[in-house]
Amino acid sequence: MGDSASENSQNKVAEEVSRVVELAKELQDSASSLIAKASSEEQALRQRVVALDSNIQKLRSSIDSAVKKSTLDRKEADKLDEELYRAKCILTDGDASSYLPSRYNGSFLKMFLGPINVRATRKDIQLKVKEEYNSYRDRTAFLFLLFPSALLFLGSKLGNDCLPAFPVQLYQAWLLFLYTSLALRENILRANGSDIRPWWVYHHYCAMLMALISLTWEIKGQPDCAKKQRGVKLFLRWAVMQGFAMLLQNRYQRQRLYTRIAMGKARRMDVVWGETAGVEGQLWLLCPLLFILQGFEAYVGLLLLRTVRDGVVSEWQVAVCGIILVVMAVGNFTNTVQTLMTKSRVKAKIKRTKSKLELDQTKKLR
Amino acid sequence: MGDSASENSQNKVAEEVSRVVELAKELQDSASSLIAKASSEEQALRQRVVALDSNIQKLRSSIDSAVKKSTLDRKEADKLDEELYRAKCILTDGDASSYLPSRYNGSFLKMFLGPINVRATRKDIQLKVKEEYNSYRDRTAFLFLLFPSALLFLGSKLGNDCLPAFPVQLYQAWLLFLYTSLALRENILRANGSDIRPWWVYHHYCAMLMALISLTWEIKGQPDCAKKQRGVKLFLRWAVMQGFAMLLQNRYQRQRLYTRIAMGKARRMDVVWGETAGVEGQLWLLCPLLFILQGFEAYVGLLLLRTVRDGVVSEWQVAVCGIILVVMAVGNFTNTVQTLMTKSRVKAKIKRTKSKLELDQTKKLR
Repeated sequence: MGDSASENSQNKVAEEVSRVVELAKELQDSASSLIAKASSEEQALRQRVVALDSNIQKLRSSIDSAVKKSTLDRKEADKLDEELYRAKCILTDGDASSYLPSRYNGSFLKMFLGPINVRATRKDIQLKVKEEYNSYRDRTAFLFLLFPSALLFLGSKLGNDCLPAFPVQLYQAWLLFLYTSLALRENILRANGSDIRPWWVYHHYCAMLMALISLTWEIKGQPDCAKKQRGVKLFLRWAVMQGFAMLLQNRYQRQRLYTRIAMGKARRMDVVWGETAGVEGQLWLLCPLLFILQGFEAYVGLLLLRTVRDGVVSEWQVAVCGIILVVMAVGNFTNTVQTLMTKSRVKAKIKRTKSKLELDQTKKLR
Repeated sequence: MGDSASENSQNKVAEEVSRVVELAKELQDSASSLIAKASSEEQALRQRVVALDSNIQKLRSSIDSAVKKSTLDRKEADKLDEELYRAKCILTDGDASSYLPSRYNGSFLKMFLGPINVRATRKDIQLKVKEEYNSYRDRTAFLFLLFPSALLFLGSKLGNDCLPAFPVQLYQAWLLFLYTSLALRENILRANGSDIRPWWVYHHYCAMLMALISLTWEIKGQPDCAKKQRGVKLFLRWAVMQGFAMLLQNRYQRQRLYTRIAMGKARRMDVVWGETAGVEGQLWLLCPLLFILQGFEAYVGLLLLRTVRDGVVSEWQVAVCGIILVVMAVGNFTNTVQTLMTKSRVKAKIKRTKSKLELDQTKKLR
């Protein structure tokens, strides 16, 4: 009887196992048919989205040429342009955007990650990526302020004009990590449709290079330590200012972004252009600060180059860091000015739209 | 008449524009309904896949306990286990695997990239990621061999026992990039379902740390340059051997992987475990080489520690690099041995399966 019970349970288990194998095959079939069906439906939608996108492009240029040939008056053209902009926003901000052709990942991402897909298919996830980038910037801005402040404080406590090498190197390693991670994240945002200006990404490549080079820079107490470390200390002071500016920027850029989203006029994936855009009211506080920072950046760079010329230090690292700082300062300045110029043009347009929206609102209220 | 023609074209453009806006709205609606439908269908399939997966797990343990209670004999249990393994393979290697719950990305990826999804939904893309990882390893293995060889050659040409700092630092920076990118790619593979042993990823974290630290290490011609650089030169020699071993490993692991895929017995996302698994016939060539490499790695580490003890160099970098090298050598050794042990167990099982398969084949041929 024991034997028959054992045989019984054996049969039961065997049956269960073959049922499981059958189920696995079934699931495999359902999965492949679901994937095939979904991808053919997606393909169809993708074609329609792409066709509409190119249609919008064509209409825009035909409106432009009609204005030039005076077959269409300026006011009417502006109205039509706005309509088209709305259609474009629906396409790029809504669920349909998943079906727009994905942008090229860029060689920086490919170099670090290989050819993986970093594009989120759903809009809400894309926005989460953007949100996370913003809060990452917030979190690091504090460290960006704290780290050099602590180093400067340490230097003043020790009093002998010589910073110890280890904490400075730790700071440099952290900078290298920070800029690498920012550059990676910005490239991911670009792949997800953000219109961040390319310069702000290149700028982080420069900063990565500088952090890497500064790691190989001997700053330890040699005979002329105070002179040698003058550049380092200036850099730290600049970093404190930069951290402060980052905090201000993040705060106001975010506020501005939310306002623009609420107004329905911004594509939410736009990282607000670099250092100045989207701060509106506080622009008069932030702009001078940014220009001072850029001037100071160039000054630190030139000072490093002078120490090389005067023969205080002969290391190539100092010269290269000097050059990179000057390049970054010039690039930042140029891009800030360009952003401000674009901004004032956009502002004029938004004003027009706003008054129109208010008009619409009033009409609806009646 | 000119006026009426202009009005006509104006009307036509306006019509076209409003049609485009309508179409954009339509596409937005179709897109959201398609996404909603697809995600509900996916959700249903996901639940079934997860249920089956846990069912397989349960059956396995019930077979194990039945064997322990002797209500099921060993041979029958092995047969059932194999059936279950087949079901599991269908689930994890086929299209259904897209619906298995995704693994946690890991904090390393999150630190660098933020919380983005790096998991490919389609199996063929997952396999492309794996393929790319393999060819990346191939490409870098050459550089891994070439770079230190060139440095050693340069050192012997210069003849004064002192390597110039710049090329060495360039090499160290490249190592830092290489290990970072390998660690990122391996984490991505893990997220895509690869069973790479965690140690080989940790091992790359250690190597990243060592490359970073070695960048801050002053190796320039100071009084006792030859003694100071002895560790560096030993490390370079070890790197040449390592590059050679990497080339061998890559070649045979790939061959082996293809064989295993062809046999239908491997899940293709498995990065062949670290340094030894999957080289089968050439194991007798590779194994001693790997053990020699690991011994040499530990030797270089201990030598660095001795130079610190003897007071030849007082830099903390030397001591920490020494410790890291010893840790890596011990970890590599332990994991290689464990892999070999698992391998011999798996081999025995595969042999059984193979003879069974051949039996089935013979039956079919009759």
